Amino acid sequence: MDDVKAVLFDTFGSVVDWRGSVVAEMTTFGHDRGIEADWTAFADAWRAAYKPSMDRVRSGARPWTVLDVLHRESLEALLVQFGIAGLSEGDLDHLTRIWHRLTPWPDSVAGLTRLKRRYVISPLSNGNMALLVNLAKHAGLPWDTVLGSDIPRAYKPDPSVYLGACAMLGLAPGQVMMAAAHNYDLAAARALGMRTGFFARPHEYGPAQTKDVKAESDWDVVAEDIGDLATRMGC
Amino acid sequence: MDDVKAVLFDTFGSVVDWRGSVVAEMTTFGHDRGIEADWTAFADAWRAAYKPSMDRVRSGARPWTVLDVLHRESLEALLVQFGIAGLSEGDLDHLTRIWHRLTPWPDSVAGLTRLKRRYVISPLSNGNMALLVNLAKHAGLPWDTVLGSDIPRAYKPDPSVYLGACAMLGLAPGQVMMAAAHNYDLAAARALGMRTGFFARPHEYGPAQTKDVKAESDWDVVAEDIGDLATRMGC
Repeated sequence: MDDVKAVLFDTFGSVVDWRGSVVAEMTTFGHDRGIEADWTAFADAWRAAYKPSMDRVRSGARPWTVLDVLHRESLEALLVQFGIAGLSEGDLDHLTRIWHRLTPWPDSVAGLTRLKRRYVISPLSNGNMALLVNLAKHAGLPWDTVLGSDIPRAYKPDPSVYLGACAMLGLAPGQVMMAAAHNYDLAAARALGMRTGFFARPHEYGPAQTKDVKAESDWDVVAEDIGDLATRMGC
Repeated sequence: MDDVKAVLFDTFGSVVDWRGSVVAEMTTFGHDRGIEADWTAFADAWRAAYKPSMDRVRSGARPWTVLDVLHRESLEALLVQFGIAGLSEGDLDHLTRIWHRLTPWPDSVAGLTRLKRRYVISPLSNGNMALLVNLAKHAGLPWDTVLGSDIPRAYKPDPSVYLGACAMLGLAPGQVMMAAAHNYDLAAARALGMRTGFFARPHEYGPAQTKDVKAESDWDVVAEDIGDLATRMGC
């Protein structure tokens, strides 16, 4: 582990609380506009559209499309499904950009700040650059750089995302740790020779979450949260 | 100017003092190894190889090649020219990476830190990601993200570098300022609709510098240095 020079973070769910943030913003929006809906169900449905929308790009059924566009399309479909009509272009843009304004988990900023002293830190996310840069600005995430999916023009777990990031940083995969609250992401990184760091976010999907509540393999580091990861990485 | 959301910086010469840094490192290296040479002439010759080496890539005579490789090749040619032999692979790598360890001008870090409060700040440089990320870490440059030439796989002043950066940030060219101590860089950015900020670095090439000692057009902002640019940009 002494060879590790950079730690790359999954972002949605691992660093920021997308669910709490989307529910809070939609609740405020609904209140301001006099729209009633189950905003928790709305947030969960929006996130449920995430994987299928990327899968069409992953499979090649659809050409490269950034996550902002996928979020906007799934939002429009959801509004119909929830019977919400009459929103302006400005409203739709504002709501799509909720994903640029997500709140970090309580330990994220302090933990990343400690890790930054010793390692290059960056998101390695399916978010596009604009989303991730705005999110970092909003949430105070102290990244050294941002590696969005529009650099490789591919979505995780495509190997080009992980290997392209290592190559751009001038590092061998064994010098780079993937850090995430999602086992699938670490499995993809390990298969390519990267180091792996896991920390659970057992309430990412709410109180009834059953997936990713614990490490499902012997990842190089298994931590409580990003602060604990920093401690275990010698920061 | 109220529309500007991001300020992108040329790096070599504009943010960091490549000449002073290369001379200092080569002088130390020469002293440690008992090698005597005119290290100022060496630094100037190394930088003089910069443009022709990129021109071969720009013209298509050579496929995309990152600056680290160009720096290494020009270093090897220079060592022959200066009659310096017997360096190890480790030495050559260490010397090539001098460009990852350049010193910022005295006003750079404080000025960028102020600009960061209000704007997204990033380098937009011919350096590759690894070089720029390591340089930022070394010099304490507080970038929000890093936009290296290996993202567009092109060198400035190719329009794809400027327009690709704006697009990745989700901004129109008129919402992005190019900031540099080089008039050619700002002319290219302005032609594409970007805003422009100039500050002279009259000793970038040493005391006898005659190029880029002043603004050669009515750039949107003409400042004394990056601190003054921050002031003029309302930070």
